[in-house]
Amino acid sequence: MSQPIKSVSPAKHFLLSALTEHNRFQSTEAFKNWFARKKQENHFFVEQIPFSSLQQWYFEEETQNLKHASGRFFTIEGIRINTNFGSTQCWEQPIINQPEIGILGIITRKFDGIPYFLMQAKMEPGNVNLLQLSPTVQATKSNFTQVHGGRLPPYLEYFFERCNARFLIDQLQTEQAGRFLRKRNRNMIVEVDHDIEIFNDFCWLTLGQIKKLLKEDNFVNMDARTVLSCVPMPTSDVSREQSIDDMMHELHTSSLDDFSRSLMDSFCGNACNTTDEIISWFTELKTKYHITVERIPLKNVKQWKRTDREISHEEHPLFSVIAVSVEAGTREVFSWTQPLLKEPQQGLLGFITRKINGVLHFLMQAKVEPGNIDIIEIAPTVSCSAVNFKRQHGYHIPFLDYFLNAAPQQIRYSVIQSEEGGRFYHFLNRNMVIELKESDKIDLPENYIWMTLGQVMEFLKHGYMNIDARTLLACIGFKH
Amino acid sequence: MSQPIKSVSPAKHFLLSALTEHNRFQSTEAFKNWFARKKQENHFFVEQIPFSSLQQWYFEEETQNLKHASGRFFTIEGIRINTNFGSTQCWEQPIINQPEIGILGIITRKFDGIPYFLMQAKMEPGNVNLLQLSPTVQATKSNFTQVHGGRLPPYLEYFFERCNARFLIDQLQTEQAGRFLRKRNRNMIVEVDHDIEIFNDFCWLTLGQIKKLLKEDNFVNMDARTVLSCVPMPTSDVSREQSIDDMMHELHTSSLDDFSRSLMDSFCGNACNTTDEIISWFTELKTKYHITVERIPLKNVKQWKRTDREISHEEHPLFSVIAVSVEAGTREVFSWTQPLLKEPQQGLLGFITRKINGVLHFLMQAKVEPGNIDIIEIAPTVSCSAVNFKRQHGYHIPFLDYFLNAAPQQIRYSVIQSEEGGRFYHFLNRNMVIELKESDKIDLPENYIWMTLGQVMEFLKHGYMNIDARTLLACIGFKH
Repeated sequence: MSQPIKSVSPAKHFLLSALTEHNRFQSTEAFKNWFARKKQENHFFVEQIPFSSLQQWYFEEETQNLKHASGRFFTIEGIRINTNFGSTQCWEQPIINQPEIGILGIITRKFDGIPYFLMQAKMEPGNVNLLQLSPTVQATKSNFTQVHGGRLPPYLEYFFERCNARFLIDQLQTEQAGRFLRKRNRNMIVEVDHDIEIFNDFCWLTLGQIKKLLKEDNFVNMDARTVLSCVPMPTSDVSREQSIDDMMHELHTSSLDDFSRSLMDSFCGNACNTTDEIISWFTELKTKYHITVERIPLKNVKQWKRTDREISHEEHPLFSVIAVSVEAGTREVFSWTQPLLKEPQQGLLGFITRKINGVLHFLMQAKVEPGNIDIIEIAPTVSCSAVNFKRQHGYHIPFLDYFLNAAPQQIRYSVIQSEEGGRFYHFLNRNMVIELKESDKIDLPENYIWMTLGQVMEFLKHGYMNIDARTLLACIGFKH
Repeated sequence: MSQPIKSVSPAKHFLLSALTEHNRFQSTEAFKNWFARKKQENHFFVEQIPFSSLQQWYFEEETQNLKHASGRFFTIEGIRINTNFGSTQCWEQPIINQPEIGILGIITRKFDGIPYFLMQAKMEPGNVNLLQLSPTVQATKSNFTQVHGGRLPPYLEYFFERCNARFLIDQLQTEQAGRFLRKRNRNMIVEVDHDIEIFNDFCWLTLGQIKKLLKEDNFVNMDARTVLSCVPMPTSDVSREQSIDDMMHELHTSSLDDFSRSLMDSFCGNACNTTDEIISWFTELKTKYHITVERIPLKNVKQWKRTDREISHEEHPLFSVIAVSVEAGTREVFSWTQPLLKEPQQGLLGFITRKINGVLHFLMQAKVEPGNIDIIEIAPTVSCSAVNFKRQHGYHIPFLDYFLNAAPQQIRYSVIQSEEGGRFYHFLNRNMVIELKESDKIDLPENYIWMTLGQVMEFLKHGYMNIDARTLLACIGFKH
């Protein structure tokens, strides 16, 4: 960094791309045909197997932790949690420990002034539909140090050397802190300005096209969503160069629907809480709540049992650990076996939004989870796994009923999305955004706060937002 | 937070206070006489004692960790460090473990539109001059839960209940990560708008008066400095309401010296690296460097020895652990004994500053230290303990020579400041700011980057800046 280069904020260009479904290479329809062909052309086969049929994976004798022979990838081990947050304050559970920082990255390039994103049709064994739209690169450190002897993932070199591409977005972001122990990845968007080779399973899409695909169930994978959630939109920074109204005029956004215009305003409008007030709210909660997470051998985890086919809770239909065998024609290694976390019931991730003083605000939740790096992360209004089980057993999930009872005219977004298919088996969450009336006052428990989208994005880039908040943010798009 | 209150940015008011040495209650001269009287009126006596004379403190049998009988306050224990950062990658050392979050807080109130700060003349046993200017409140959790049976610190109630005062600044900030294990305090500035009782050792000062006192050696204590470092100055946020030029005109700042005007510009001027580029720099370093810190019994710490008077390194004049007895007339408890960390040699904290494209930038350092909460914090250009020892033994401290060989016309600030006298015995650092010419190009190692003051303050409020960077930032003031 001895020769710093002044760069223009890329936010306006990203907004242009978000508003554009026109693609000089292929229409969204043509893309879908291409994607369907990929499904047909390739051979995928995933089957649950007993743990005893796992190759290279074994239960370590002393701890019964589930490990890979290389000592790399991830292990499944146990944790014991003590916290003063929430109704369950002491429990034990299995967790994925993968201390490496991986790379989730998208290459972007401008064509006719519009940024296009290089996306990949990629199979993951845990996906309900196997093939999903994925970022250019999703690589664990074990991938790029070639532990399993496969090929290096294509395009990886653009994310390692700043001379190969301009790093526009480059942030450490966390994964599911209820399932992963302090796991995070480097979320990157890098820009090239020259021709690059486009490999077989890759294609260029505008952000507007990807936003459209995000309206279909289980189409855009979690890794793509977390990277896309980091895409900045024009806020006050850009409005200093050019007022937002001028920009909207130039972009012909007058045809946008009401909610899309509210979203635009929420990026740069006045917030009901200042940044300093939000930091104060967060500071007070971090001071008040504590959590200790002790790593324990998997064999000692209370209330969980292991059979030859799964490790599961004795009573509740929570997640379980299973093993699968995989055969595929488009992955670095042709066939393999691996453990996955199976999630038997659907979850719900939702934002309540509401105008305050005319500006759309999002209701955010501070949440303590065992895998968090520093006690608390910010989650969406509702972030609830196994919704039906929890309803039937009388769990109190604040604001859940707003989503379950939402009237059609309140629903701004409602799509099922998949969590990461390389670790989770059929783990689905309904992603919802609802809008209340400005006059609908609601009382907030101490760990909830209203934020504008501009503020959410400001805190997101410093790592406050959890994966559930980010995946939902990625789904937000503009409608003509 | 169910009734959020829209607040006006306090930055402009703080700037007014920073530019004002006029005080309606007492001139700076009168304050100094008051402070000198406090020294005379009060009885202070601090003496080093053997560990065996400590009351309530003992070496735990199994570990030989140094602990308090209550199980509260802090303990001195051992850590074993492994890291791939720096030239020493593996070592063991004693460290202070105090997992509680304390409060360092200042009450502010506007008189004639100018914020005044309620400061305290407070004795700490480790201070070279015993009495220093301190924040309104500095309270460990053991203080405010009254573990040692003393009185509650005065004014504490203003920092607990939002109905008593408006929380303007409320941030978790860390302490010395080479001496404390993951320690942080809540740094707070709260505003009242009504008369409050002013107790005996307290008085109102403007920020300009405090900045003047920061030009004297060992006058303003570390706790005051860390809180004051969080005071926001007008940046682009405020300049949207009113251009910085208008504000400067209104504030009659045309009489400011050149460096003061450069500082003002650095709060809102164009930076050579964008925020996203700085985050990318930080992300890459966090991905590259790791550190593991294992807590070990104090008795097992290699290369350290214990006598009845100190725990010290076998060869090097590093810090040591000692015990003192204290008698004082102005503290909650009249006399007590406690351990302190003695720092035999002076350190140096320094910022290199330089204009880039006409805007003053600060050279910041990413530093891995064992007590950090998440691998890396941002330190000043130089943050070096025991300077003479390290020079004599050929340690390579990047940029140290710029300060040791600085020409008088380069030096913008050079004052000796004390670290916290409640934990450290005579721990002094020379604090320096030097300015290079715009044409003085320097090559930066990968873990250094140029930032404007506006950017430094932006990252500071999210907790990136270590105590050394913050204490130095607090010292920066404006000169007519």
